[in-house]
Amino acid sequence: MVITMEKFVEQSLLFDFYGELLTAHQKKIYEEVVFGDLSYSEAAAAYEISRQGVHDLIKRCNKTLSNYEEKLHLVQRFGIIQEKVEEIRAQADQPERVEQIANEILEEL
Amino acid sequence: MVITMEKFVEQSLLFDFYGELLTAHQKKIYEEVVFGDLSYSEAAAAYEISRQGVHDLIKRCNKTLSNYEEKLHLVQRFGIIQEKVEEIRAQADQPERVEQIANEILEEL
Repeated sequence: MVITMEKFVEQSLLFDFYGELLTAHQKKIYEEVVFGDLSYSEAAAAYEISRQGVHDLIKRCNKTLSNYEEKLHLVQRFGIIQEKVEEIRAQADQPERVEQIANEILEEL
Repeated sequence: MVITMEKFVEQSLLFDFYGELLTAHQKKIYEEVVFGDLSYSEAAAAYEISRQGVHDLIKRCNKTLSNYEEKLHLVQRFGIIQEKVEEIRAQADQPERVEQIANEILEEL
C-alpha cells in the first residue's frame, strides 16, 4: 500500500501519542508494518493470519488512533504549542514578544 | 467523602485530559458529584441507582482515568512544559536562557 508522506507523518504522530492504547498484539504488528519493513505478506506469514487480516488490523488501528484524537485533540494541542515555542526561539531577543507568546502558551495548557 | 486538595487537583487534571474517554453516563455523574455540588445520595436519587452504585462509578472512573495517564503520561508531559514556559516568562529578558529553555521544550514535544 502506497501512502503519502503527509499521511505517514499523521500516522506517526497519532501512534506516538496513543499507540499505548492499542493491544500489545495490534501495536507490534502495526509497528512492524507501518514503521518497520515488514510487508503485508511477510506480516501475515510471521503472525499466521491472512494478508487480509493484516490489512484489516492496520485499518482498525488507524481508526482507533484517529478516534482518540477526535476525542482528546492532544496531537493538535501539542502541535500548537510546538509552533509557539519555535516562535519564541526565533524571537528570543525580544523580551516583550517572548512574554506575550509564553502567556499564549500558558493559556493553551 | 472528604478528599485532599492535592487529590482533587489530580482528579481535575486527569478528567481534563481524559474525561472524554469515559462513557457519557459516567462523565455526567462524575462531573456532577466530583466538580458539581451533588452528594452521593442526591446523585443516587437523580440517576435511580444505589448510593453504593454512585460510589463504585466514581471509583471506577478514577481508576480508568489513572490507567490512561499510566499509559500516556500526558498530564505529566504537559506539566513539565508548563513549568518550562513559566521559566521562560520569568527570564524573558535573557535571550540565551530563553533559547536554551525553548530548545528543552522542543525536545520534550
